[in-house]
Amino acid sequence: MKILEYPNKNQLADALGRPAFDADKLEKAVKKILKQVQQKGDKALINYTKKFDQVILDNLSVYNEIIDESELLLDPELKNAIRIAAENISKFHKAQIPKTISLETTKGITCWQKALPIEKVGIYIPGGSAPLISTVLMLAIPAQLAGCKEIILCTPPDKSGEINPAILYAAKISRVTNIYSCGGAQAIAAMAYGTESIPKVDKIFGPGNQFVTLAKQIVSSQGIAIDMPAGPSELLILADDSANPEFVASDLLSQAEHGIDSQVILLTNNKEFINRTLVSLNDQLKALPRADIARQSLKSGAIILLKNEQKMIQVSNQYAAEHLIIAMQNPENIAEQITQAGSVFLGNYTPESLGDYASGTNHTLPTNGFARSYSGLNMDAYYKKITFQKADKTGLEIIGPFVEIIAEAEQLQAHKNAVSVRLKNIQDENNEQF
Amino acid sequence: MKILEYPNKNQLADALGRPAFDADKLEKAVKKILKQVQQKGDKALINYTKKFDQVILDNLSVYNEIIDESELLLDPELKNAIRIAAENISKFHKAQIPKTISLETTKGITCWQKALPIEKVGIYIPGGSAPLISTVLMLAIPAQLAGCKEIILCTPPDKSGEINPAILYAAKISRVTNIYSCGGAQAIAAMAYGTESIPKVDKIFGPGNQFVTLAKQIVSSQGIAIDMPAGPSELLILADDSANPEFVASDLLSQAEHGIDSQVILLTNNKEFINRTLVSLNDQLKALPRADIARQSLKSGAIILLKNEQKMIQVSNQYAAEHLIIAMQNPENIAEQITQAGSVFLGNYTPESLGDYASGTNHTLPTNGFARSYSGLNMDAYYKKITFQKADKTGLEIIGPFVEIIAEAEQLQAHKNAVSVRLKNIQDENNEQF
Repeated sequence: MKILEYPNKNQLADALGRPAFDADKLEKAVKKILKQVQQKGDKALINYTKKFDQVILDNLSVYNEIIDESELLLDPELKNAIRIAAENISKFHKAQIPKTISLETTKGITCWQKALPIEKVGIYIPGGSAPLISTVLMLAIPAQLAGCKEIILCTPPDKSGEINPAILYAAKISRVTNIYSCGGAQAIAAMAYGTESIPKVDKIFGPGNQFVTLAKQIVSSQGIAIDMPAGPSELLILADDSANPEFVASDLLSQAEHGIDSQVILLTNNKEFINRTLVSLNDQLKALPRADIARQSLKSGAIILLKNEQKMIQVSNQYAAEHLIIAMQNPENIAEQITQAGSVFLGNYTPESLGDYASGTNHTLPTNGFARSYSGLNMDAYYKKITFQKADKTGLEIIGPFVEIIAEAEQLQAHKNAVSVRLKNIQDENNEQF
Repeated sequence: MKILEYPNKNQLADALGRPAFDADKLEKAVKKILKQVQQKGDKALINYTKKFDQVILDNLSVYNEIIDESELLLDPELKNAIRIAAENISKFHKAQIPKTISLETTKGITCWQKALPIEKVGIYIPGGSAPLISTVLMLAIPAQLAGCKEIILCTPPDKSGEINPAILYAAKISRVTNIYSCGGAQAIAAMAYGTESIPKVDKIFGPGNQFVTLAKQIVSSQGIAIDMPAGPSELLILADDSANPEFVASDLLSQAEHGIDSQVILLTNNKEFINRTLVSLNDQLKALPRADIARQSLKSGAIILLKNEQKMIQVSNQYAAEHLIIAMQNPENIAEQITQAGSVFLGNYTPESLGDYASGTNHTLPTNGFARSYSGLNMDAYYKKITFQKADKTGLEIIGPFVEIIAEAEQLQAHKNAVSVRLKNIQDENNEQF
């Protein structure tokens, strides 16, 4: 890790810089995949699965019998842990369900805003050596709570054409409606455009490699909503005297093991703490199965010694980390001053991995500084909010004349007329003689 | 207008099709503008303003003295109308301010979600013959209510280098912090990348022509948040026996006068109503200053006779209109069955123009069917929601073992370790002998 002591502005900017991702290189390849799927549907999906996943599929759908059978293969302890995690995620997300807002803005004019579930959502779960069980829960549970009618899930099959039983189990308890064996940019295309087997959805959620990320970005510019822009995962830790170097080292490693482009940053006002953390870091690193990945990721990470608490908070807000651990005295106090972050973990007993799996918060979070303008995934992402308004004659009589004046100033005569014909009609009614 | 009676599925799809917008053609031109502004800053902006707006500016900032002076030029009646509209918009949006959500998901684990304002927002207001006063209110008032620190506004100057006093007044009462004379794709670039004069913002809001729309789309793929994807404005009206043909005609025209690509659709179950509406439409059209635009837009519009109320609702939900007027008996009843729309106007006395200006709802709404997955602009758009969590020892002891199990299944050993080192530490403390 780079170690900086009391850096100046430029040194700081250097250390906190994020790796740029050059989408242009992949664009041609991804656009070709999107086009093929749009034109050839299932056939293209089956071809790409053969090419990229080395599997020949008869069929993209994963049938319920397979889901039920594979459940029998699962360790009961794991099933139980998945259920406990699901319960906490459910509790925290249920509390976020938006309520209808209604008020009379002017006598006779009622306005209300109602949240309705997005009808069809698609979830992408990447493949690879390990099953991203928790990601299934994080993306599907809120969809189920919102009442989305169709919740489909695409994930690539393994070399033997199968999908990990834990993924299937997590999808089942989250009430995913259909699962498809399909991965990569081609799965994003399938959900964006629809094929014979896979229905077109209104919004696509989920992480993925650079191909998947770019595919989501392209379909989003075509009007298919996506959850948020993606980048490598990040952790920033604020640690003072009260922090435990062993805990902090374990947190840095839990982020570093994600991938070689993971970003880890430690800010502290305690010089001695740095050395103690480095010792523990090396110690723990030895025993890790993914030590090689972690080592590479740590290379671009930074430990930065800062003058005081206020500077630590300032730099943290400037960085806008995806994950932020506050290992400081009075973490609640510090948290009040945090204005830019994805998800925040307070105190010595709240490792990031708690939020990754089971505290209840969502682990789909804005990376790459996007926390300045994007929220972590929450219930809002599964709804669209519709506004309604109703004016009675009184309401229109009060507000109508003002609408006429502004419409006139905007030179939109027909906008004005729509009010005028009604006001005249009301007046005619009032003047009617018997 | 095209008139269809009891169409079949394909005829319906044809009539309700939206015009495709081919961004590829403009892409080169827009990318060049973005690059120039990124590289040359203010100099590029001044050059483009000379080229596109035929104005040579010394300075991009609009000073407070100019804003105050120009207020004196404004008709007091218009000022008053703007203030009344602002009050209603303010009331309805204030009611939407998100609250902190906090709960204990497991004994000893508290999770909360807090909404914080996006710090720097940029608003784009197009130029043209008429000042879009209401758009300033719709975009800036929620920013002010959310507490955004910087609210900047870019709008192109007129041929004499000036900005309409009504725009300046609306910006002033909405507490816009800085106004800049700058329009088109170059203004979007300025707000996305920052220049010497114009600060970089975290999120860009506002309508515009195809260049502006594409520029927003491109910067959004670079991580600058935008309000929503844009397309031509739309109105769908549901009318039964209880509707007034004169009112309905005035509403169709108020939409049609926006632009030649505006979409207007009338669905009714009453054959006779169609003729009465057409007569009134021709009648009202004659007196309109923007009759030519309206006429062209109406050409691609459709009046569709459907079998019954249920079919009307079904087709309306399928279309997912930006604006939806329900001119039917028991409009509340019908509104309950609307699942896809931007903003909905109930009954005979709620013309769309009421919502465009002063009912209180926002007029920045999803077009092009985006209402299936996007909300109309609302307070959420000005916040990012951050999650927080804190576990004490008890909480970690309860949930930690489940986290260990799932992390193990995901083959993320360091994620597991971050819990294990803490649980071991707690156990050691518990076992400490005195």
